[in-house]
Amino acid sequence: MKLPHAINCYFALMLFSAAAPAFAQELARSITGSAEQAREKHLKMQTRKFGLVVHGGAGTIKRSNMTPEREREYRTGLERALSAGYEILKRGGSSLDATEAAVRVMEDDPHFNAGKGAVFTSAGTNELDAAIMDGKNLKAGAVAAIKHIKNPVNLARLVMEKSGHVMMDGEGAEAFAQESGVELLPDQKYFFTQERWDALQKIKAAEKHRTGQAGKEFVITDQDRHGTVGAVALDQNGDLAAATSTGGTTNKRPGRVGDSPIIGAGTYANNATCAVSATGDGEYFIRATVGHDVSALMEYRGMSLKEAAQTVLDKVARLGGTGGLIAIDHRGNIALPFNTSGMYRGYVDPNGKFVVEIYK
Amino acid sequence: MKLPHAINCYFALMLFSAAAPAFAQELARSITGSAEQAREKHLKMQTRKFGLVVHGGAGTIKRSNMTPEREREYRTGLERALSAGYEILKRGGSSLDATEAAVRVMEDDPHFNAGKGAVFTSAGTNELDAAIMDGKNLKAGAVAAIKHIKNPVNLARLVMEKSGHVMMDGEGAEAFAQESGVELLPDQKYFFTQERWDALQKIKAAEKHRTGQAGKEFVITDQDRHGTVGAVALDQNGDLAAATSTGGTTNKRPGRVGDSPIIGAGTYANNATCAVSATGDGEYFIRATVGHDVSALMEYRGMSLKEAAQTVLDKVARLGGTGGLIAIDHRGNIALPFNTSGMYRGYVDPNGKFVVEIYK
Repeated sequence: MKLPHAINCYFALMLFSAAAPAFAQELARSITGSAEQAREKHLKMQTRKFGLVVHGGAGTIKRSNMTPEREREYRTGLERALSAGYEILKRGGSSLDATEAAVRVMEDDPHFNAGKGAVFTSAGTNELDAAIMDGKNLKAGAVAAIKHIKNPVNLARLVMEKSGHVMMDGEGAEAFAQESGVELLPDQKYFFTQERWDALQKIKAAEKHRTGQAGKEFVITDQDRHGTVGAVALDQNGDLAAATSTGGTTNKRPGRVGDSPIIGAGTYANNATCAVSATGDGEYFIRATVGHDVSALMEYRGMSLKEAAQTVLDKVARLGGTGGLIAIDHRGNIALPFNTSGMYRGYVDPNGKFVVEIYK
Repeated sequence: MKLPHAINCYFALMLFSAAAPAFAQELARSITGSAEQAREKHLKMQTRKFGLVVHGGAGTIKRSNMTPEREREYRTGLERALSAGYEILKRGGSSLDATEAAVRVMEDDPHFNAGKGAVFTSAGTNELDAAIMDGKNLKAGAVAAIKHIKNPVNLARLVMEKSGHVMMDGEGAEAFAQESGVELLPDQKYFFTQERWDALQKIKAAEKHRTGQAGKEFVITDQDRHGTVGAVALDQNGDLAAATSTGGTTNKRPGRVGDSPIIGAGTYANNATCAVSATGDGEYFIRATVGHDVSALMEYRGMSLKEAAQTVLDKVARLGGTGGLIAIDHRGNIALPFNTSGMYRGYVDPNGKFVVEIYK
């Protein structure tokens, strides 16, 4: 079975083929047709691939700071996310469902900065952003600065499907959630993790030290700055989707909105090109319109997914931003570039095996 | 003086040249140099144009619904906005200052749906969005769903320059405003206009009639749906900027964020290409990543500003959205396409004369 795009692209093998038996059947049927028809059907079957990539944030992730146990916990979290999405794709489900399911798993995992485990704002609160986009019809849903919802990605999906809007924020988004039957948490205790709380205290102490008691300058270490979860998928219908969720950046001002819920920046999907979910210094990713730029370079310049993804990440770096992104195109090629020392990431290889990586 | 781009582009005459005397001087000085050097300097002077375009929203604007007095009021509002921006550009000020000033004038004018005169949400409140972007360095600031600030565009600029963030929303944005010395309104009375209130009542009545007492389906007429103000400018340094401000859509759910504060959608500026401010069905403009797409078509496909702007607006229409946009490129060409019956709009012609138009 010839897979030219798998040879052309470094990451092209990162997809799983469910087409082989169906292809044999289809070929048999096509014996009655012309050679040309058979070839066309063959090509059509070849594209019936599905693929899934997830990330759990990019940043200063060093082996020296990691215990074997902790590393195992992260790996398990990423594998669980892959599993949730993979099961859906394997049985012919949509990329939209798969990305939502994968992100939800990571939102529920306290290791990642999204949902349970979200970082703290400078006011000691948690404010969550999320988005989801359907590459088939460019429909999208996003929520920003919400405080009492366990799974922002589900609310983003609901905004897309039921609100008549694309983006909703704050109390308005939560009122819509309640009206739609989504449980609101009575307070923010659910989001508390000691580790994130300690990170905020550490930053606040550094801030005091650096600027004196009166100063208000931001001091955020690279380690604490990054953290987002995301998933991109191609389903058996050839539809692409992307979903992203985050608690934002530690010590952010209340009300700060990052790139994750910005359609075209942290989250983007378009069947004509690719699906993208980003993680990093959100401000730079917004200014570089990361998701749509990857898509535009493919569509208008004819770049491969890998080339487009790297080109855009390099633009972010030139602006001064660090981070990474995951992307998948309509052929199932994937790209996972990042310019930090690590990015929690995973994908499913052509044999259905889960590949999980953390460091460079 | 040869102006090839003025001939090539339909809108190219909509700029004002301050270069002629300086050019003669420059040419005289260049006599000592080579012919090639003189030509290069000539070209450089040619590009020292500045331009300004403003809009006050697109929608179903018909002569039959307009009194001469009302039309005069709109025209005066647009001229005042042009004047505010023009004065800055003429004396060598930045496009960033010019767009901010032009938008602020329209925010203060109750005829336009931004600042004073903002439409009402379904809860009878006012929630304002705004953004500003500097094409020189891709810096940007945006605010969403704010309730107690007279001039959201000024706050967007402050977010860009002082917050360390790009986008802030709701109470968090207002807390930052207060901390920065911006006056917070004690309540929302300032935003009240009888006309906008009546529009909300009309929509609510239509909603009741159409869906029965219990129904919650959205019923929004085209007339009430649109309304945004915006400005794009090129200054004498060759820097582009865009600014947009809006009250959103009448009867929107509280918390709804439109395209205006989304960098890359309703607002975008990049010295390499163009500056864009959009108005229309915000949800569709977000999904189409309007501002960045105009830029990408110019940068990656080599389209003219006019062609790129129309191409993107056509994409919005195919998704089902109506509205318009204003754009200016780094040569001073402008475009003002819209697919509604009218768009409040204005620009300054090459002689410094203000041109204001409303209908198709």
